[in-house]
Amino acid sequence: MKDERREMNFILHPSSFCLWEILMSVLAETIANIQPLDDDAMNAARARQDQLTKPTGALGRLEALSIQIAGITRNARPRFKHPAIITMAGDHGVARQGVSAYPAEVTPQMVLNFLRGGAAINVLARHIGARVVVVDIGVASDLPAHPDLVSRKIAHGTRDFSIGPAMTRDDARRALEAGIEIVTREISRGADIIGTGDMGIGNTTPSSAIVAAITRRAVKDVTGRGTGVDDAGLARKIATIERALALNKPNPNDALDVLSDVGGFEIGGLAGVMIGAAARRVPVVIDGFISGAAALIAYGLAPAVQPYLIAAHRSVEIGHRATLDYLRLDPLLDLDLRLGEGTGAALGISICIAACKILDEMATFGEAGVAEKSE
Amino acid sequence: MKDERREMNFILHPSSFCLWEILMSVLAETIANIQPLDDDAMNAARARQDQLTKPTGALGRLEALSIQIAGITRNARPRFKHPAIITMAGDHGVARQGVSAYPAEVTPQMVLNFLRGGAAINVLARHIGARVVVVDIGVASDLPAHPDLVSRKIAHGTRDFSIGPAMTRDDARRALEAGIEIVTREISRGADIIGTGDMGIGNTTPSSAIVAAITRRAVKDVTGRGTGVDDAGLARKIATIERALALNKPNPNDALDVLSDVGGFEIGGLAGVMIGAAARRVPVVIDGFISGAAALIAYGLAPAVQPYLIAAHRSVEIGHRATLDYLRLDPLLDLDLRLGEGTGAALGISICIAACKILDEMATFGEAGVAEKSE
Repeated sequence: MKDERREMNFILHPSSFCLWEILMSVLAETIANIQPLDDDAMNAARARQDQLTKPTGALGRLEALSIQIAGITRNARPRFKHPAIITMAGDHGVARQGVSAYPAEVTPQMVLNFLRGGAAINVLARHIGARVVVVDIGVASDLPAHPDLVSRKIAHGTRDFSIGPAMTRDDARRALEAGIEIVTREISRGADIIGTGDMGIGNTTPSSAIVAAITRRAVKDVTGRGTGVDDAGLARKIATIERALALNKPNPNDALDVLSDVGGFEIGGLAGVMIGAAARRVPVVIDGFISGAAALIAYGLAPAVQPYLIAAHRSVEIGHRATLDYLRLDPLLDLDLRLGEGTGAALGISICIAACKILDEMATFGEAGVAEKSE
Repeated sequence: MKDERREMNFILHPSSFCLWEILMSVLAETIANIQPLDDDAMNAARARQDQLTKPTGALGRLEALSIQIAGITRNARPRFKHPAIITMAGDHGVARQGVSAYPAEVTPQMVLNFLRGGAAINVLARHIGARVVVVDIGVASDLPAHPDLVSRKIAHGTRDFSIGPAMTRDDARRALEAGIEIVTREISRGADIIGTGDMGIGNTTPSSAIVAAITRRAVKDVTGRGTGVDDAGLARKIATIERALALNKPNPNDALDVLSDVGGFEIGGLAGVMIGAAARRVPVVIDGFISGAAALIAYGLAPAVQPYLIAAHRSVEIGHRATLDYLRLDPLLDLDLRLGEGTGAALGISICIAACKILDEMATFGEAGVAEKSE
C-alpha cells in the first residue's frame, strides 16, 4: 500500500532532474506553481487603507484581510463577482464502527438535498450570491445523474481504516488531483473566490485521525462528538482512531501517507482544491473541522499554500483549535457552528468581499475633504 | 439642571394615575409599549429548527439568533427586506480638552462623506443592501440642507462636561425622543431590522464616562484610545472623565441623569432608537462602544429593551467588554473593529438575515427525505 511513498517524496524534494520530469504529475506541477504573496500589491493596498476616511487600523481584521487578498490576487484593489463553494461528498468505511449519530445513507440523501437547494449551504450561498459546486468524490452508493452534480467518484467510499489503510496511495493522489481539476475548471469559468465544504457521514473520524497524526496531539484531545454521538459513541470513536493510527502508522511528515492511511476522498479532494486555488492565486476560504483536516494535508504537501488560506470560523469540534494553531490561521467567525457543507465558508466569503469593497470603494481623506489626524 | 429628575423617576415608577396621564411623554409611552418576546413564535421557530436537515444545534448561534428574532418579531419565520442603519452625529464640548486624535471639524466633514456615499458605513450598507439614515442630532456647525440628511439638532454640540453637565435634562429627553421618532418613522416606511451607528469626534469620552458611571467600574478600566490618542492623550482623557464624574455626580440608577451629566446627543438619540424599535418589535443590531453606551442608557430607562438588542461585535475599546457584560449580550463578531458609524452593525445585520433565511428556507427532514439521527 505504501509503495509510492518514495516516489512522492522525490517529487517534493527533487534531486534528479530527469526522473523529476518523468514523474511530473498534475499534483507536483500545481504545487510547483504556488508563488509567495505579491508584496507590491500588498504595499499598495496597505498605503490605500491608510488614506481611507477612517482612523488607521480602525477596521481591524477587515483591513488586514483586504491586504492579504491583494497579495493573493496580485491586485491592489481586488473585487469579487463570482464566489463558488465547492462541496465534496464521500463515504467512510470506518462509519460502520458506529462512530456517527447518523446512518450512512444520509450522505447521498444530503447530496440530493444540495442539488434541490434545500440544505443550509444552499441558503447561505444564495445569501452571499455564491454558486455551490456539488461533487461526488466517493459516495458509497450510486447517485442519479444530475446536471449540477460533478461526478468524480474515486471509489464507493473508503475502506474501514480501523482494519487497514483507507485508500491506496494512488487513490489519495487521484482525490487530490480531482480537487485541483475541479477548482481549476471553476476558476477558468470565472470563479474568483473559493469556499470549501464537505458532506460525509462519519467524516469527523478521519479528520480527527489526520489532526492527531499531523499535529501529534493525543486522539482524545482532538476528537469531538461530530454530528452528536453520545458518551459511548465518543469513546468508541476515540478507540477506533487510536487503533487505526497504531495499525496504519501514518507518517506525519508525509501528508499523502496520512491521507491514504486515515483520510477520506472528500478530504483529499478539498486539499486539492486548496492547492489548485493557490496555484491560480485565488483566495480559499476554508470551512470548519473537515476542511481544516484537508488544509493540514494541503499544507503538508505544499507549505506555500498557507497564505492563500483564510479560516472562516472556529468550529465547536475540539480538534479544530489544534488544527488552526498548527496552520497559524486565525478564524474570522466564532459562532458555534459544526455543520460543515461550507456553511461557515459562505459567511466568511461575505466578510472577505466586504473587506475588499472597503478597500476599493471608500473615499480617501483627500477625495472627501476630511481632515487627518492632528498629530 | 437636575430639576426634572423627580418627575422622570415618577414616570418610570408611577404611583399616581392622574399625574401619570398629565406627564405621559413620548418616552414614557414608548417604554410602556415594550413587551416581552413572544414565546409562541420562539417555540415554533425552535421546533422548526429541530426539523431542518442538519444535526440539532449544528448551526449554533445562528439557530439561537433566529429563535430570538422570531420572539422579537412575533413571527415564527421572520424575513427581512429593508434593513436600515441609523447613524447619528453629534459634537462634544469635552473634545476641547484634547481627548481625541482628530480635530472636531471632522464630525461635519464625515457627515458630508456619509451623504456622498464614501464612508465605510456606506460601503458596508451597500454590501448588505441596507439604507443609511444620516442624522444631525447635535453637530456643532451648521450643515447644508441635503435631501438625505435628517436634521434633528438638539444643540450645537454638548457643553464641556468637565466643567458642568453636558446637557440639560430636557435636552437629554429631547435626544431620546428624536431617536424614537426617527426609528418609528423608518419602521413606518418599511424598515424591518435596525442597526445603530454614530459619528462624533471625542465621543468615546462620554461613552467611557457613561460606562464607568453605570457599571461602576474604574474610569481607567473602561477608557481606551478611541481614534488613536497617544499615552499623554489617554492620561488626559482618563483624568478628564474622572473630574467630570466627581463634579457632575451622575446617579447610576437614573439613566437620564447619566445621559445629561456626561452623555452626548447621538448617544441619547441612539438609546431612543433602541427603545423605539423594541416598542415596535423590530430587532436592533447595536454597533460598538458608543452604541453600547447608548444601550446602557436605554437599558437603564427600560430594562425590557434588553432582549430586543443584538450585539454585532466586540470593539477593541476596552470599555466595551464591561458594557456587554453588564447588558448580558454576547457579540456575534470579534474582528478588532473600532470605527463606529454602524460598520459592525452592518456586518451583524447580515448574519441576522442569514440566520432567519436558514430558519425559513431550509428543507425539513420530511421534505427532503433525509434520515434522522439513529438514536
